[in-house]
Amino acid sequence: MKLCRFQPLEFSSANLGRSEKSLHPEARAGVIEGAEVREIKSLFGAPAFTGNNWPLDEIHLLVPSVPTKIVCVGRNYAEHAAELGNEVPKEPLIFLKPPSSAIGPDEPILIPSISQRVDYEGEFAIVIGETCYMPAAGEDLRRYVLGYTCLNDVTARDIQKRDIQFTRGKSFDTFCPIGPFIETDWDLASATVETHVNGQRKQFGHTSQMLFSTDAIIRWIAQVMTLVPGDVIATGTPPGVGALVAGDTVEVSVSGIGTLRNPVAAREA
Amino acid sequence: MKLCRFQPLEFSSANLGRSEKSLHPEARAGVIEGAEVREIKSLFGAPAFTGNNWPLDEIHLLVPSVPTKIVCVGRNYAEHAAELGNEVPKEPLIFLKPPSSAIGPDEPILIPSISQRVDYEGEFAIVIGETCYMPAAGEDLRRYVLGYTCLNDVTARDIQKRDIQFTRGKSFDTFCPIGPFIETDWDLASATVETHVNGQRKQFGHTSQMLFSTDAIIRWIAQVMTLVPGDVIATGTPPGVGALVAGDTVEVSVSGIGTLRNPVAAREA
Repeated sequence: MKLCRFQPLEFSSANLGRSEKSLHPEARAGVIEGAEVREIKSLFGAPAFTGNNWPLDEIHLLVPSVPTKIVCVGRNYAEHAAELGNEVPKEPLIFLKPPSSAIGPDEPILIPSISQRVDYEGEFAIVIGETCYMPAAGEDLRRYVLGYTCLNDVTARDIQKRDIQFTRGKSFDTFCPIGPFIETDWDLASATVETHVNGQRKQFGHTSQMLFSTDAIIRWIAQVMTLVPGDVIATGTPPGVGALVAGDTVEVSVSGIGTLRNPVAAREA
Repeated sequence: MKLCRFQPLEFSSANLGRSEKSLHPEARAGVIEGAEVREIKSLFGAPAFTGNNWPLDEIHLLVPSVPTKIVCVGRNYAEHAAELGNEVPKEPLIFLKPPSSAIGPDEPILIPSISQRVDYEGEFAIVIGETCYMPAAGEDLRRYVLGYTCLNDVTARDIQKRDIQFTRGKSFDTFCPIGPFIETDWDLASATVETHVNGQRKQFGHTSQMLFSTDAIIRWIAQVMTLVPGDVIATGTPPGVGALVAGDTVEVSVSGIGTLRNPVAAREA
């Protein structure tokens, strides 16, 4: 099932663009079936259809979940750790991006003038469906997962290096494209993660190369903090990170899920 | 004016305790006047009184704001930077704590068994009242500030040092006591920040010793991310940080605001 958040085009698209705008008051939840979106009352729980349906070309897809937090795992693919000169971590390394950085598909990533180097980092992300805190050792964690989506952990690399703390370089508005929807039925075991810039493949990884599994990641994070419905966990980026400039189009594709596409523009005129 | 969030005692206090519980459905906003709380419709904007009033001893104070993000400034007092062996930063150093770490006054700070060293860090915090993004150079920032409160940036120091990234060590549930209320009229210029553990003074600082002013901090953060009403900015801790153990009571006092008191307990039985 493909879960999404959307806004019918009848409610002006003029308000789309900047991160917080994604939290649009006319936002609705839906299930994508073929070329149609069927409205549901909530992203969470068994889908309750309202009976309102729209053709896909009469809606805007919004960021598919409104997270209270976006938790990211760094260096979860050995080759990516190596390309930035880092050792392979013995434990998952986590950091946060603020909810204000989240944007939906097709919304522009805005490059701030205070960074000289902004990179894409294509990933797949877990969307939490049920509150999860300190699960028992043998517990099956699938019940806490609503589904999976694509995510671009956009990073001002120069600021990240200067600050050492990742926060500022990864927290700019628009630096966390998420979407295009949440796939609830996904075979993680044989999936690939790719990033294309202007149609050229830049990143490629296979989920089998992940240092820490999704179960290990959820367990590690929920040992520290309560995960609540809608929270997003980015699982780390494969090798091949590189720069984005205004005018680019960047696409994060996860096999079995879909493609998250965003244009890139300059923040300052 | 002293703004608060509260819950009348008639709605069982049995649900209080763990961070997310602070987001209680019976939570109301109020203004504290003497020994009374006067209910208002919203924390934001000119207070609209509902006419419902409670004596202070018939309510629980909750975390005074429900932030979408908690942005913290590290090393904003030179002597604190020095005591942890760090250089004085040339720019504000920012990091995030997740909303799930926030608790209100009197709720217990829970020490996880996976840390051997959990420290208090008493601070004053800014609560945002209006959306703020990239304010103009000469703009007066007071309009974006709802008020000020006390905050304890509780930190698992051993985990912080091991990870280098601050996130995990600072993100445990209950690691961000905030309160007891938001003071809208506060003279920052001549204020002191103190932390007491079991009645003994451990930290003392004066706002005049801050390396970066509240204006500089807000401007620095809003250059990166959109601040929205309810967001909290912790302004850094003065020297004197030290450990907490189960059984302690820790108090963060800011002159002209009040005292935030929390007991300390072990997370695991």
